[in-house]
Amino acid sequence: MNDFTLHTKYNYDAAIRKVPDFPKPGILFYDVTSVFNNADALRNVIEDAYSIYKDTKITRILAVESRGFMIGGALGFRMGLPVALARKKGKLPGKTVSQSYDLEYGSATLEIHLTDIKAGDNILIIDDLIATGGTLKACRAMVEQLGAKVAGVFGVIGLPFLNYKE
Amino acid sequence: MNDFTLHTKYNYDAAIRKVPDFPKPGILFYDVTSVFNNADALRNVIEDAYSIYKDTKITRILAVESRGFMIGGALGFRMGLPVALARKKGKLPGKTVSQSYDLEYGSATLEIHLTDIKAGDNILIIDDLIATGGTLKACRAMVEQLGAKVAGVFGVIGLPFLNYKE
Repeated sequence: MNDFTLHTKYNYDAAIRKVPDFPKPGILFYDVTSVFNNADALRNVIEDAYSIYKDTKITRILAVESRGFMIGGALGFRMGLPVALARKKGKLPGKTVSQSYDLEYGSATLEIHLTDIKAGDNILIIDDLIATGGTLKACRAMVEQLGAKVAGVFGVIGLPFLNYKE
Repeated sequence: MNDFTLHTKYNYDAAIRKVPDFPKPGILFYDVTSVFNNADALRNVIEDAYSIYKDTKITRILAVESRGFMIGGALGFRMGLPVALARKKGKLPGKTVSQSYDLEYGSATLEIHLTDIKAGDNILIIDDLIATGGTLKACRAMVEQLGAKVAGVFGVIGLPFLNYKE
């Protein structure tokens, strides 16, 4: 029941442009932006996510900068839920909780406004691409530090998991 | 008829958190992220934008990185339109058109995939904040370079304009 493919017949793979040798030679890059620039694919992503999560007790979406904002905003609108943002360091104006994570070279830091997630919230994390999981672990750590819990993780590429465990 | 306030009774100003002294002392920062993290405000933004643009001949949305993605994705979903992205330099994997613009200190560059906007498109540009207009001018230049035209500009803060003129 947690497998995205059980919920849809839409051929997302065909809607995702593959760009060879980006960001470096030998890597075939899955360009999820081509899903957004396709009205049919965009509608299917949001309706599929809605179907998966509509009967859960999600209270708030956490959208990860920056492609996660595309789906996060649309899904928040579809579900009638507020959308908090996890942004790169220095972008949020208020007081934040922050968490660093490793990249292939070096590290990066994400931040969430202290007041944007409430204790007891059931959070659905939205990223475009569930790859290494570094951003997800960082988000989970911040969500838990704010007294909330991660109730789901959704991305266009990679399988979404209800009750995501590391 | 082009004035956002004519289309809505929603009090957006109350939904926008004001952060003093960000990004530097003396500046009162309008934090539009507080609108996204409010289900009622988010719904109103999208429904108001839908009301403004539903009877126009918009064929595609152009969402400006990164807060513009929040509204761009949701409005594309609501209107059934594809959403192209204007991203910061180096983020898009395919071949792009690019345009630089001046910031208070230095400059920045936005890019759009060459194939993401079609000749003849009527483009609605979405940014979160219509301030200096530098990003909008850069987007307009790229849209026109790709043979399309800007049919509207929408932001949460600042008035949206149909038939935007510089």
